[in-house]
Amino acid sequence: MPHLIVEYSRNLDGFPEARALEELNQAVTSSPELADEADLKSRFVLADSFQVGTVGAGRAFVHAQLRLLAGRTPEAKQDLSGRIADVLRRLTPRPPGVMVQLSVEIVDMDRPSYVKERL
Amino acid sequence: MPHLIVEYSRNLDGFPEARALEELNQAVTSSPELADEADLKSRFVLADSFQVGTVGAGRAFVHAQLRLLAGRTPEAKQDLSGRIADVLRRLTPRPPGVMVQLSVEIVDMDRPSYVKERL
Amino acid sequence: MPHLIVEYSRNLDGFPEARALEELNQAVTSSPELADEADLKSRFVLADSFQVGTVGAGRAFVHAQLRLLAGRTPEAKQDLSGRIADVLRRLTPRPPGVMVQLSVEIVDMDRPSYVKERL
Repeated sequence: MPHLIVEYSRNLDGFPEARALEELNQAVTSSPELADEADLKSRFVLADSFQVGTVGAGRAFVHAQLRLLAGRTPEAKQDLSGRIADVLRRLTPRPPGVMVQLSVEIVDMDRPSYVKERL
Repeated sequence: MPHLIVEYSRNLDGFPEARALEELNQAVTSSPELADEADLKSRFVLADSFQVGTVGAGRAFVHAQLRLLAGRTPEAKQDLSGRIADVLRRLTPRPPGVMVQLSVEIVDMDRPSYVKERL
Repeated sequence: MPHLIVEYSRNLDGFPEARALEELNQAVTSSPELADEADLKSRFVLADSFQVGTVGAGRAFVHAQLRLLAGRTPEAKQDLSGRIADVLRRLTPRPPGVMVQLSVEIVDMDRPSYVKERL
C-alpha cells in the first residue's frame, strides 16, 4: 500500500532514476513493515521550476515522501526514512559548487477511508 | 475547497483523462459534503518514471488523493473514497498482462490556516 | 526544512513563475518561524489536465501547499498561509472571463521520522 514520491530539482542533472527506483524499492520492501513487495508504488517527479531560499542559483534538493497507512510506531517510521535516505545519499548527483539538500518525510494515510484494489 | 489529484503510471496508455475528470467531479460534487460544485479542483498527474515493487515491468497503478478540510466523519470520508474508486475502477485501462493497482486516499487539510479566495 | 509546492491550471497563461518563486521565498523566509532562508525549497507544478467542478471551461486555480515540521502554533500557520496568499493574489494572472480560485494549505510533517541533510 505505500506510495513513495521522490522529487528533485532540475539542476541535479543525470539523476539515475531507474537505478534509484530499483534500490529504493529494494530497501523499503525489505522492511518488516511491508507485507508484499508489490504494494510499493514509487515514482520520480522532476521539479523544473524551483528556488531554494532567497538565492537564485547554486542550490539543489531531493525530497522523498513515503505515504503509508497510519499505525506504524515512531521507530518503524524512522527506520523507513533512514532506508530511503541511505539510498538517496549514495545516488544523488553532487554537481560542483552546488549545495544539495536531501530530505525524507513519512506521511500517515487515513486508514478507514483508504481504498485499495487490484483491477 | 477540495482538491483531487489523480496519478497514474505511464504504462496505462490511453487513460481517458477528460472523461474521468468529468465523471469524478460529477461523482464527488454529488456528495452532500460539498456545498458548491465549483469548489472541487481536480487534476491528473502522469508518472513517467516509476516502479511498482521490486519487479521492473508488468505492473501499473492509479492513485487518487482527495484533500478536503478536516472535520468530516469517517463515514463521509469512506463514501467519498468509494465514489472516486467507482469511477476509476470503470475507466482505468487494463493492458493485457499488466497488474493494475487502484488506490484512493482521503487527506484532512488543516482548517484554521487554510486560505480560500476567488480572485 | 519547509517545502512549498505551488500548482496552477494551464489556463493561467503567463504565470510569472520565476518572479513568484522569488517573492514567495522572500515572504516566507522573513517569517520568524524559519531559522535559515536556505531551508525553504519551493517549486511550481503545472496542471495540464484539470477540471474545476462540473463545468469544463472558464475556471482556473492556483493552490499552494507549505509543508513544515509539526509544532507551529495556529497563529504562526495562519501568518504563513497569509504571506503566501498575499504574493499569489498579486501575481496570479486573471484571464478575462475566467473565475480564478486561490487556495493555500499548511501541512504538518512528522518530526521524529523526518530526515534532513546537506550532501
